[in-house]
Parts: sequence; structure tokens; C-alpha cells
Amino acid sequence: MDKRAHNFNAGPAALPLPVLEEIKENFLNFHGSGMSITEISHRSSLFDEVIDDAIGRARRLLNLGDDYHVLFIQGGASLQFCMIPMNLTLPGRPVNYISTGIWSIKAIKEAEIQGKDVRVIATSEDRDFSYIPTDYTVDKQASYLHFTSNNTIVGTQWGQFPDGRGVPLISDMSSDIMSRPIDVRPFGLIYAGAQKNLGPSGVAMVIIREDMLKRVPDDLPTMLKYTTVRDNKSLFNTPPTFAIYAIGLVLAWLEETIGGLKEMERINKEKASLIYGLIDNSEIYHGIAELKSRSMMNVTFRLPDERLEQRFLTEAIKSGIHGLKGHRSIGGCRASLYNAVTIDSVRTLVEFMRGFEERSV
Amino acid sequence: MDKRAHNFNAGPAALPLPVLEEIKENFLNFHGSGMSITEISHRSSLFDEVIDDAIGRARRLLNLGDDYHVLFIQGGASLQFCMIPMNLTLPGRPVNYISTGIWSIKAIKEAEIQGKDVRVIATSEDRDFSYIPTDYTVDKQASYLHFTSNNTIVGTQWGQFPDGRGVPLISDMSSDIMSRPIDVRPFGLIYAGAQKNLGPSGVAMVIIREDMLKRVPDDLPTMLKYTTVRDNKSLFNTPPTFAIYAIGLVLAWLEETIGGLKEMERINKEKASLIYGLIDNSEIYHGIAELKSRSMMNVTFRLPDERLEQRFLTEAIKSGIHGLKGHRSIGGCRASLYNAVTIDSVRTLVEFMRGFEERSV
Repeated sequence: MDKRAHNFNAGPAALPLPVLEEIKENFLNFHGSGMSITEISHRSSLFDEVIDDAIGRARRLLNLGDDYHVLFIQGGASLQFCMIPMNLTLPGRPVNYISTGIWSIKAIKEAEIQGKDVRVIATSEDRDFSYIPTDYTVDKQASYLHFTSNNTIVGTQWGQFPDGRGVPLISDMSSDIMSRPIDVRPFGLIYAGAQKNLGPSGVAMVIIREDMLKRVPDDLPTMLKYTTVRDNKSLFNTPPTFAIYAIGLVLAWLEETIGGLKEMERINKEKASLIYGLIDNSEIYHGIAELKSRSMMNVTFRLPDERLEQRFLTEAIKSGIHGLKGHRSIGGCRASLYNAVTIDSVRTLVEFMRGFEERSV
Repeated sequence: MDKRAHNFNAGPAALPLPVLEEIKENFLNFHGSGMSITEISHRSSLFDEVIDDAIGRARRLLNLGDDYHVLFIQGGASLQFCMIPMNLTLPGRPVNYISTGIWSIKAIKEAEIQGKDVRVIATSEDRDFSYIPTDYTVDKQASYLHFTSNNTIVGTQWGQFPDGRGVPLISDMSSDIMSRPIDVRPFGLIYAGAQKNLGPSGVAMVIIREDMLKRVPDDLPTMLKYTTVRDNKSLFNTPPTFAIYAIGLVLAWLEETIGGLKEMERINKEKASLIYGLIDNSEIYHGIAELKSRSMMNVTFRLPDERLEQRFLTEAIKSGIHGLKGHRSIGGCRASLYNAVTIDSVRTLVEFMRGFEERSV
């Protein structure tokens, strides 16, 4: 086999090698049909099995009750930013947001465009989004409380989710869904672009609680109503069949090879602690996120100057280590450690970082 | 290699075998990156090349002038049904639609939901959509004239496009884009879900003329504005990278292996005439669409009764011929002959149909 890159991309990101191998192996002939998965009808029994399997696995992994629906919607998390206020605002009631970075701001902007009564009840903008706020009061009247569970850019993550005090939580979990067990019960809706922890880009997983669907206004465009997606089991129009198939394989890997979200969390913690441990004992690497708010998924750090950062990134690529360049909005470096990034890749990165420091001081 | 099915699916549909083979071959290692195409960043130079190549090929194949933009948008043609009236209605001016079947009706419904002044200037509903109307008067004041260029369900197709008399044409070309050369100049916008002639499902190609973009209202949700997609070269948020990559390969096959749209049209005509020729000389197969309106892409026919139809479909599958079941809304049979369906598959179908007739009378 060809040599695999050590892939620390922020998304689209590494996928589990066994999943990629299975896709490749069956690409010309799905389940003996003589057709590629990309050539079979979304109305066929073959595809029914695919989507039912993916939904069933998501339900088991997240321990979802019968009152939750698992939907697949095109347009990524970005389309959810506008669908959420459009579908789920209660008439005359405010919507609450906590702002922890660029993705929260984008979500807030879409509610504002729609003229909703948007109240940002907490923000960590004062310290460049380097921490998760702990001080906030939820409006008792709020339609929902929206937050971003993991912030890919600065590398912060909610350890314990905010307390909605009865107000339904809504969370963009694009970058940490399925990375750890969660209690979904306080959530009215959870959404995640697939391209970090779930599969290829081009689809979002939306987990919505039954009672939230009653809020959906009748007069929305058909494709923008959660009820349309729910009523048609995500098959109102042709879904991204390949992406859903790949998500099913990733979830099967999570369930059967990894052994579930508790074990996945243990591995993810181990991966992150290897790099944070190095950073905390280093002369040249400086963590960007504040200690208590550090993300298990995206480890962000800076080197003393941009010249050295550039050399670091260039030498990393020469060593087969990819995707370490920080987000264009803040610069620096970032190692994204999504589920499919192996301990072996992380050890290789840590070794490289250690060697680079030795060569540089 | 495994035996390939003869795939007459209506969409998702057959893809060119060399394209599938190339995807398979490179699936674990895209361009020597050590990563799958599904694992590389949409902000990487590798993906820039992919999307630029796909756009360039679409431009050349359709002979687009500099005033046209090629965009990739998630949500299929169905999301376009609502984006078009939302973005392109001129204030106080009506929108014109010609209704030639279920897909036209769905497009019309979304304009109505938004409260637009919708005028359906012609419909073929009186004869179950079995023909393309020729009698209609376009409102001179209309914002646009929308029509469906090919109707997959009944199997009709516009041979010559309607004359907009200066009003910009907008067309859903999901099922016949790239099947024949067209003159794009009367068109303000052309859109097509990918899963018939372009690639895997999960993305629509939208071709929009520069002047239409001036109509886009400022206050729309960001993801639903054509200007957002144009300003960000379809990379405002993470696009469906795998689907765009596959589309690029399909367009390369069209350009380099087939030799362009004129040659593709010749082949498509030959394929369709093989089946229509058989139907027109048959005792048991009866074409559904009226002669003058017949589609080159979807050949629809009935057998004398449902029992025989069922036997026909069952025996076809046993002979490795798939996807002949008509759309659930009208029943009957349908052979979809998109670009990637080979002459060899069509000959196999014709032989099977001839044999079935001989055995049945």
C-alpha cells in the first residue's frame, strides 16, 4: 500500500483507513449489484438498508430515545445557522446565543438577518475567544440557547455543557460529535457538518427532538423545513448517497472496531494529552487556548515568531505531517485530532515537534 | 472485473466506467498526497485544482462566455426551486412558469409559498404531461421564464427552447444537461442536480449570468444568496468535495473520451432511436410521451397490463438489466439513457425487449 500521510487537517479530515479501504474495495460493485454505490437509486432497498443502518448506529452510539430523529441535510452546518432560527423561534420570544468564536458569530448573524430578537448572553471575545465563558444567565423566555460545543479555530471546547434551565439547548457539534458520550436530553437540536468526525463533506447530521418539530412554521420553503426532512426520512429529494454510505461505515467502525464513544473519548484524551503535555513542557510551543477550556479535538499553539512557524510547517510536511497550519483568521499552528487520527500519527507529530524544538533552541 | 449491471436508473444513475475506475484506483492516495480525496482540505491547492478543472471543463463544453459563472451548490435542484424566486424576482414584477410535469409543479409551488406573482403561462397537464406545450405568451414584464428542459417522469423534452422574447430563461436541466450542445445566451440561469448526467448526488451545478446577480436582495440568509456562492467560488463553506471531484472526472471523460457535446448528442440520439424504433414496431410496448415531445434521455413505455409489466421488470433484472421501473407517480416502464449509459447496454435492452415480446405474444 502507498504511504499514508499523517493527516491533521481541520476538515475535511482524516477518515479511518479501514473505512477508506472498504469503500475502495466495493466501489465498482456495491453488495453484488454490479453498480457503484454512486449509481444506485436512493429509492432502492439497497440504499434503504444503508441509511437505516447509519441512523440506527447514530441512535445507539448517542443513546438516543425514541423522541429524537436523526436527519441528513445538505448544506453543512452553515445552512443550519439559518434553518435553526427560521424553524425554531417561538413567536414573540427571544433566542439566546453564547459566542465562543467565528462559528458562533456566523450562527448569530443568520438569526439577526431574519430579524429575530437575538440576545448574546455571553461571549469570550474579550480575550480573543481563548476560553469558554462560565458566567451567563439564560432568558427563561428564550426559544432556545445556542452554543458551539467545540471551537476549531482557537481550540476551545465545552467540558460541561451550559445549563439551559429548561430552555432547549441547540448545539453546533460539527467538530466534536461522536468524540465522547453526551447526555442528549437537554438538547432540542444537535447538528454537525460531517467532514470532521463523521465522514466526507457535503452533508450535516441533524438530531432533533420531536417536540421542537411542532414549532416549524407552515409557510417556509419546503426544503428548509425540518418537518419535510423528518416526514420523508431525509429522502424528500435525492440525498448525498455516497456521503451517507460513508458515514454509516464510519459509525460502524466507531461502534464495532473502537467499541463506542466511551472508548473513543479515552483514546481522544490520550491523543490530546500527548501534545498538550509536550507544549506545557516546551520552550518554543505556546498553547493558544486557556488551560481550562482546551479542546480535545483541535490543539492550537504558536511558535515564538512567524519565521519559525513557517519553518515548522514546511519541515512537518517534509516529514509527511500535514494540515498543521492554523486557520487563516488567526494564524499559528493547529493539530486537529478527530476520531480517525491515530495514536501513531499523534506520536509521530510529538516526536517531530520534540526534534524540531531541539534543533531550534 | 465483476460483471457490470446494465443500469437504466433515473438518478442516481450510471456513471462512466473509466471514471469509476479512476476514483477507485486513487481512492487512498489522491495525487500522491497520501490522503484520500475525501480527506484533503477544500482550502488546499490540490482541491483548488480540482474545482478549477471542473469549472473550466463545464465552461468549454457549454461554450460559456465570460459573463457566466459556474457554481456548485448543495441541496440539489429542489433547493434551487426556492432559491430562484427568492433571489431573482424583480420587485413588483411577475414570474412566468411553463408546467410540463411534477418537477415544474414543485418549482412553481416554491415561488407561490414565497408569495410571488406566479403566472403559469402554459401547461400540458390536460394530457397528463405527455407533450411539450407550444402555445404560450410570455409576460414582457416577467422577471424570468422558468421551464424544465427534460421531464424524467413522463419522458418529454424541449427540442427547441421557448422564446423568452427578451425575458431571461431559467431552466431546470437536471436530466439533460451536457447531453447536447445548447445556446446559453438566452438563459439567465441553468441548474442541474448532478446525479443524472454529471456525477454523484449531493450537489447542483448552477450556471448564472452576471446581470442576474444584481437582483439578489441583501437581506436573504447568507447561504441562500447566489452572490455568496459566486463571491467565494463555491467555497463559502465546505463544499461536497468528493462530488465535485467526480463531476470533474465525468466532464473530462465527456471532453476527452467522447469528444464534446455534439458527439455526445449523436450517441444519445442513436441510443434513444434504438428503443423508440423497437417500440414503434411493437405489439406490446406503447410509448407514453407524444411523438414530437419524446425525450432522448428517458424513454417511457407501457405494456398491455400491469401483470405483464411486472413480469417484464422481473425478467429484466434476471437478465442484469436494472432501473426500468417507471416513476411511482405514473407507473409503467422507463429506460433512462443518460450520457454514461453505453450503446452496448442499450443494445442488450433492445434484444431483451424483442425476446420478451416474442415470448409473450
